[in-house]
Amino acid sequence: MKAIRGAFLDFLHDPFYRDEQDAIRYLPDGLLVIDGDKIADFGRYDQLADKYADIAMDHYANRLIMPGFVDTHVHYPQTEMIAAYGEQLLEWLEKYTFPTELKFQDKTYARSVADRFLNMLLMNGTTTAQVFTTTFPQSVDAFFEACSERNICMIAGLTGIDREGLAPAEYRDTADSFYTNSKDLIERWHMKGRNKYAITPRFALGSTREQLDRCGQLKGEYPTAWVNTHMSENHKEIAQVAEAFPEASDYLNVYERAGIVGPKFTAGHAIHLSDDAFQRMSASKCSISFCPSSNLYLGSGLFMIHKAKSLETPVLVGLGTDMGAGDCFSILRVLNDAYKVAALQSQKLSVFKGLYLATLGGAKSLMLEDEIGSLDPGKYADLVVLDLSPTPALAFRAQNNPFGKDQTSEEHQCARMEHDAFGTMMLGDERSVEATYVSGQLLHRKTGTPVH
Amino acid sequence: MKAIRGAFLDFLHDPFYRDEQDAIRYLPDGLLVIDGDKIADFGRYDQLADKYADIAMDHYANRLIMPGFVDTHVHYPQTEMIAAYGEQLLEWLEKYTFPTELKFQDKTYARSVADRFLNMLLMNGTTTAQVFTTTFPQSVDAFFEACSERNICMIAGLTGIDREGLAPAEYRDTADSFYTNSKDLIERWHMKGRNKYAITPRFALGSTREQLDRCGQLKGEYPTAWVNTHMSENHKEIAQVAEAFPEASDYLNVYERAGIVGPKFTAGHAIHLSDDAFQRMSASKCSISFCPSSNLYLGSGLFMIHKAKSLETPVLVGLGTDMGAGDCFSILRVLNDAYKVAALQSQKLSVFKGLYLATLGGAKSLMLEDEIGSLDPGKYADLVVLDLSPTPALAFRAQNNPFGKDQTSEEHQCARMEHDAFGTMMLGDERSVEATYVSGQLLHRKTGTPVH
Repeated sequence: MKAIRGAFLDFLHDPFYRDEQDAIRYLPDGLLVIDGDKIADFGRYDQLADKYADIAMDHYANRLIMPGFVDTHVHYPQTEMIAAYGEQLLEWLEKYTFPTELKFQDKTYARSVADRFLNMLLMNGTTTAQVFTTTFPQSVDAFFEACSERNICMIAGLTGIDREGLAPAEYRDTADSFYTNSKDLIERWHMKGRNKYAITPRFALGSTREQLDRCGQLKGEYPTAWVNTHMSENHKEIAQVAEAFPEASDYLNVYERAGIVGPKFTAGHAIHLSDDAFQRMSASKCSISFCPSSNLYLGSGLFMIHKAKSLETPVLVGLGTDMGAGDCFSILRVLNDAYKVAALQSQKLSVFKGLYLATLGGAKSLMLEDEIGSLDPGKYADLVVLDLSPTPALAFRAQNNPFGKDQTSEEHQCARMEHDAFGTMMLGDERSVEATYVSGQLLHRKTGTPVH
Repeated sequence: MKAIRGAFLDFLHDPFYRDEQDAIRYLPDGLLVIDGDKIADFGRYDQLADKYADIAMDHYANRLIMPGFVDTHVHYPQTEMIAAYGEQLLEWLEKYTFPTELKFQDKTYARSVADRFLNMLLMNGTTTAQVFTTTFPQSVDAFFEACSERNICMIAGLTGIDREGLAPAEYRDTADSFYTNSKDLIERWHMKGRNKYAITPRFALGSTREQLDRCGQLKGEYPTAWVNTHMSENHKEIAQVAEAFPEASDYLNVYERAGIVGPKFTAGHAIHLSDDAFQRMSASKCSISFCPSSNLYLGSGLFMIHKAKSLETPVLVGLGTDMGAGDCFSILRVLNDAYKVAALQSQKLSVFKGLYLATLGGAKSLMLEDEIGSLDPGKYADLVVLDLSPTPALAFRAQNNPFGKDQTSEEHQCARMEHDAFGTMMLGDERSVEATYVSGQLLHRKTGTPVH
């Protein structure tokens, strides 16, 4: 057993549907007790200190400790090609993505990138992600091997593309090889340790009807598996999907027909959606990964978060970096872009709404809220320790916090934290992440920052 | 005399109107000779080395040296309120801006923020800016005093607001006080050392017709002065301007009627412009400050850079952080947002176009190209030394540069630099700035980085 003392923030409810102050749980001086890989106890320091007086304690002063961030849509093989210049989706795939991902036939190479990718996530405070791989099974093995070593909770799966013309022949799989390889990988990795498997047709346009049907078949055989894909990202893509699947009423319906839309199904992007599609997604309890950095970077469009988080058609929403089309590994930088995407639609994304999406909201969107996303005892001890003033700009902003240090009421302290945390949401990056814990283990510490 | 050796990049022409390779000047191994505060010589190292064998030389290996960045629209009094939450323009002004700027009645406070602001700019590689102050003359004095100590080229001016209801009474000036104080400040600061004065009506809505006429009068009396303001930023603002100035045909026409539109006039934002307004701006040779971070942050809209940089209606364009409505001090971060604003309109902003706007383009937009913006001998030695791989993400990206180190032709070297520089444009921030020189003096060096 060990304990961590400091200021803690997590969520008890969804602040999109509840008064924000009721939605959050903020302990200015809290104690979190870890037993093995899980949270054993959590509460106010003054109430728990005596009970745990004998165990080792790390004390983070002037920090904010939260559940680790959740990235619901990211491509590990694109680590090296982040910020490739100048194209929209389909041209970008052809020009940059497939040539890069072809390298992942080499398992040794794949493993080296998987390690680097996971370390980048940890450096940015992300402790769970839903991850695309390539069409090569060895790239999936390499990834889960790297995850297993860290005892980290990742969802990933073989990423199928079998449609001619969409990817180079040497990159494509077939409906049959995808089915066989996926089945084999599910047996090997799904629910082994903290690993979780997602049946992963890359996107409708990349798959034949047959490959999508095989996805449905796999989901029938392995109902606990996740399903992860892209949807309605780009106008040209959407037009081509309509052409390729004339029987489908819209993009979502392509997946509905394959029998894969429901809980544990995540559609990445979902930018250009009709009200009817929002209604069907809401009813099916599937989820959307909102990837604002990528959506701006590729010029795909503005996700209608106000519709997805409406009372009328509530859809589960998490955040995705979508690195490499997204230009960062940092969920904080994604929140900066999310704020801007909302602002362009005259919507306000508050810091608590943003941080909810980054933690419990992301966990719920992946149906992982029993395991991660908050600091409730029984969940895994996946934590991020934030420094809210790591740069001169943030330090000066915090110094001028309108809620000064002179008042110590809990309300005042909370308002003070809210102001600084919003600065971090807008100006933060990996410098804001002082430490990251996974399964109770300290896996990242910012260089030069000793752990107390 | 002293010299700097390294890789240099600047611009000879505008890459929006010229083949990019013809527009740039890239010296993989160059020598720049500084005499006093100016560039005395510049060329290939192998051609100049013998001539300057006896003078002291700083050698920056694996760096890219450029003219210092130009920020054509920024508010120094907002340094402490960067990233204030949740409002669009008019509400944001009322709720956050005026209360903060009232503090600048205190000259000592103003000076302390001016120093901090200038140091933030230098840390981000910005060596010239066009700067808003407040309605308080002492805030202008404080700013120019701080600039004079650094021998840095800044344009600034008393920032007038005299319209009732738009700002608190204690913040407002009058047409007369604005005129008298501006005249006094122009006499004291304009063209003294490297200081330059801008007649600065904050924005049309903040000024009465009388105050704007006084601006025209000042411009008539001091034709070498700059004029700096905001224009067509927000739909609600534009509607209110139309109401306040019923005689004007559009927002631009309010300024035209005051006789201030022409060379050395900068309109900040200019997001919502008719083709006719573009034509008139083009014909008048005035300029626009493109402030994408601010425009996204406040949800103001998408600047049509393709229209401003068109062959039909070319308008001078520079970049502005517009800090504090912009959420950064860094022109590199502004370029990230500029890329996204362009992408959302299906436009591509290449790295050379971006870096042109950040340097020579910005200088030209301010009619300062005789003094700054490129590395031509005779200009001031204002330089930024960039590290193109200061973070793990950028380092790994650079390591996978498709133009490997094995080939050494100049074309290949240039393509290699272009790829890494684009990474810096999209992922860079103050960590990318290793050193900043102003008037030949090293005024910023990244902590922990020794100058060679």
